[in-house]
Amino acid sequence: MALLNRFGLDRLTGEVDRLWATASSLLDESAVLFEPPVATCTKICCLALNYVEHAEESGLEVPPSPVLFFKPPSSLTGHNRPVVAPARTRHLEHEVELAVVIGSVTRDLPAERWREAVAGYTVINDMTARDLQLANIDRNVPWDQAKGFDTFAPAGPYLATVDEVPDPQALELRLEVDGQVRQRANTKQMVFGIPQLIADLSDGMTLEPGDLIATGTIAGIAPLQEGDVMRATVAGVGTLVNRVTFRTA
Amino acid sequence: MALLNRFGLDRLTGEVDRLWATASSLLDESAVLFEPPVATCTKICCLALNYVEHAEESGLEVPPSPVLFFKPPSSLTGHNRPVVAPARTRHLEHEVELAVVIGSVTRDLPAERWREAVAGYTVINDMTARDLQLANIDRNVPWDQAKGFDTFAPAGPYLATVDEVPDPQALELRLEVDGQVRQRANTKQMVFGIPQLIADLSDGMTLEPGDLIATGTIAGIAPLQEGDVMRATVAGVGTLVNRVTFRTA
Repeated sequence: MALLNRFGLDRLTGEVDRLWATASSLLDESAVLFEPPVATCTKICCLALNYVEHAEESGLEVPPSPVLFFKPPSSLTGHNRPVVAPARTRHLEHEVELAVVIGSVTRDLPAERWREAVAGYTVINDMTARDLQLANIDRNVPWDQAKGFDTFAPAGPYLATVDEVPDPQALELRLEVDGQVRQRANTKQMVFGIPQLIADLSDGMTLEPGDLIATGTIAGIAPLQEGDVMRATVAGVGTLVNRVTFRTA
Repeated sequence: MALLNRFGLDRLTGEVDRLWATASSLLDESAVLFEPPVATCTKICCLALNYVEHAEESGLEVPPSPVLFFKPPSSLTGHNRPVVAPARTRHLEHEVELAVVIGSVTRDLPAERWREAVAGYTVINDMTARDLQLANIDRNVPWDQAKGFDTFAPAGPYLATVDEVPDPQALELRLEVDGQVRQRANTKQMVFGIPQLIADLSDGMTLEPGDLIATGTIAGIAPLQEGDVMRATVAGVGTLVNRVTFRTA
């Protein structure tokens, strides 16, 4: 059964959120396939190396300013939907992150006015074909493709509004695979916090309603097997569940 | 004076193209500000190192398979519009390229069926803040931001339909700055041709109508100064003109 969770930002009110939440609970949410929490999305801005312990496990230094890469809107999928690795990769990894949902056209916004840009928050899992990424790192060439495949940006289950998340820099992040905790940290440990990210990304680049800022993953990235079920949680925002499958041809 | 050149792909017919071309010629095209040649665009897929001589000037080896990075739709601008470098960069460079305009939803398309994906072609200039890019290359971190600012993807002036470009692998590319030729080569020199690019990019990732594939730049990249006028030509496709300006704050 598919239930729409996709709505334009003009319909973004607490009432709509509560309506869907109520409908979902009545319908047994575990049986419901969700759409991504944003209908209009022109880019997914992802932060690399925004937690010290993840930079360390990657063998890289924490950068002096935010480091951005893009995932395309075509990589979005929703809660309870499968993450499908194409046949060209055999090494898929999870990366739980807090995502900021942009709510207004934003350009050159000072950090202290960051709240004007934000519609709310959701959970994102920055799926990565690690074998393809590492092969390109070895050659000193970009690795966007390794993170840009269809279904490699599961997000949701809901958009939590700004009123529902009073302090986005004090949220526990956790990723479990089949009940085992793989990643756990807190958004207070971000190297560059949300105000600075919005100021930096909007310096010269327009952020548009429905755009997502994936604020960076935490330590504990690890390989996945066929059939693994990932539960990506940001406390107070939601738990995003996706099963992994590998295409063989 | 601004003249719309932006139309949905449902209106993409030679008649529409000819209508605009005629209107523009009557109106003195040099005085007309164009919109980008695609109205719906979800991603700009850019190829790195797809010409041998450009790989050599970059000090990198030609990769064994296509190397992809993304520019966001917010970086698009049109013919005769200014390219505006944000204050955070002082080293801006031009990169002329042939762009393929996607015309249909495309996923897992075999190379021999590549024509099914293509609506036409246009010229793109993959503007690059080289100082920001090189700083990130030194740190082994992504440099998408250095190419993703607003106006860093001028494209146009028109969409040339597939009928107007019978062989996209035999087109002269040229970039002039204030009358001096900086870049010159031919699309027949691509390392990976358009059929292979479409097959590779669509392997696991959906291409959508209005998406662009920037097929890689040629040797001769070089810095720009305030007020420089770039003329990016793909023979048989068009000449895209943009003046450079640097913001100071």
